[in-house]
Amino acid sequence: MTPPDPALLSLNAITTKKWTLAEAIDGCVRHGIGGITVWRDRLQEMGLAAATKALRANGLAVTGLCRGGMFPAADAAGRRASIEDNYRAIDEAQAIGARCLILVVGGMPPGSRDLAGAREQVKEGIATILGRAREANMPLAIEPLHPMQAADRACINTLGQALDLCDLLDPQATGALGVAVDVYHVWWDPQLEAQIARAGAKRLLAHHICDWLVPTTDLAFDRGMMGDGVIDLPRIRGLMEKAGYRGYNEVEIFSQRDWWQRDPDEVLRAMKQRYAAC
Amino acid sequence: MTPPDPALLSLNAITTKKWTLAEAIDGCVRHGIGGITVWRDRLQEMGLAAATKALRANGLAVTGLCRGGMFPAADAAGRRASIEDNYRAIDEAQAIGARCLILVVGGMPPGSRDLAGAREQVKEGIATILGRAREANMPLAIEPLHPMQAADRACINTLGQALDLCDLLDPQATGALGVAVDVYHVWWDPQLEAQIARAGAKRLLAHHICDWLVPTTDLAFDRGMMGDGVIDLPRIRGLMEKAGYRGYNEVEIFSQRDWWQRDPDEVLRAMKQRYAAC
Repeated sequence: MTPPDPALLSLNAITTKKWTLAEAIDGCVRHGIGGITVWRDRLQEMGLAAATKALRANGLAVTGLCRGGMFPAADAAGRRASIEDNYRAIDEAQAIGARCLILVVGGMPPGSRDLAGAREQVKEGIATILGRAREANMPLAIEPLHPMQAADRACINTLGQALDLCDLLDPQATGALGVAVDVYHVWWDPQLEAQIARAGAKRLLAHHICDWLVPTTDLAFDRGMMGDGVIDLPRIRGLMEKAGYRGYNEVEIFSQRDWWQRDPDEVLRAMKQRYAAC
Repeated sequence: MTPPDPALLSLNAITTKKWTLAEAIDGCVRHGIGGITVWRDRLQEMGLAAATKALRANGLAVTGLCRGGMFPAADAAGRRASIEDNYRAIDEAQAIGARCLILVVGGMPPGSRDLAGAREQVKEGIATILGRAREANMPLAIEPLHPMQAADRACINTLGQALDLCDLLDPQATGALGVAVDVYHVWWDPQLEAQIARAGAKRLLAHHICDWLVPTTDLAFDRGMMGDGVIDLPRIRGLMEKAGYRGYNEVEIFSQRDWWQRDPDEVLRAMKQRYAAC
């Protein structure tokens, strides 16, 4: 396994949660990190125009915008509101020149036990916004989330399931619809190798890296830095590259008890070092 | 959906963790619960002869013995020790007249990142003990565990994966090898319906019920009582019955913060009531 290309390292800005977007942009520049994935709350805080200007002025690749999705709702008004919000997300992603809009598709509406119904709503939601995304030339990246988040965050839980949706809604594999492969969500999947190969270059829109800690103490906010857990990261990167993926490797770490507590400059130093080693 | 048969309710004794096995047997009798699944530590504490006598004298169906498995190990000595322990588990299961031996297959050995290797060890382990299980007329029930436990508890994480193993090692579907369907582990699986149908009566050895809480605060010990979470329990029971399953519905609840703190008699009352309602 050849080492990863240092030029293809990207920071998902949630990893340095203490920082504003402006600070994260400066941090990337200071540490020589060429890519950044932006969150919408921080983008709105900075302002779309100022953020766009800073991202371009510093030559950063915007590897994604987090996030669209969250389609299922208890009623029609809720579903319409979600669609409208996704349209705004597409516009924002286009404005900042993001390479894709990440879709965290949403779980079951509160009080519901209808998982199949939620999945149907996700299908309908993506079908609805896909036309607008095509017009904006903004690829939509469905991110399957770990099954432990099926109820409350995303009812698309395997790469196979996400790719079934892609095949249904974009059968020509035009590049308008694909997947974000986050190792944290998919590393356990016995079908991982087959599904990454199935996806191919056209569908593989993002590669998110971090690590799975043993023990894990929280279902959402206890991710590890690469090397601190049990995921065979070189293997998964190899599968991605073999399938034709040539994009960035984006570090996305939610870590309430550890990395979010540290000085973000220390986080970036660690991230660069661990990236080189995996 | 017709209500579940009250005669097919079983207590997995971990649900009343405060109780010894003798107390759990008495509790089942007192509350008119016809089945019980036993844990080996509690069985050894009571003594095999005394337990067997009490279970028979009270006419309880022993719906399972927890647990065999835990095959992967860092070295050959560890693997041999695991096989020997599984042989003892088969003997114990036979002695108490259990309907199956539950296999929690094990995760990766400490320090390992070789998930495929761990899965290979599981395959070899089950292949090794299957002959002895056949001689003892003791069905082995592979229990796929939730993907969030892939690293440390069980590297078989979907029903499909478990059934692939069954097909490989027992292609004739003799009844010697099958699966335990625990709703907590599989409820999220988009292939659930197809895989339960594929399993069929010969492979469906156990049905474990509880609920998935939102939020869930611990990866292992925060299960809910039926009705307190988001799992569509009647639907899954319906899939089981449609596939030919006629066995017990076994309540297995690990609940550090709630049910394990309560008076076990209260737990059994709640369990009976909730069972009737789902």
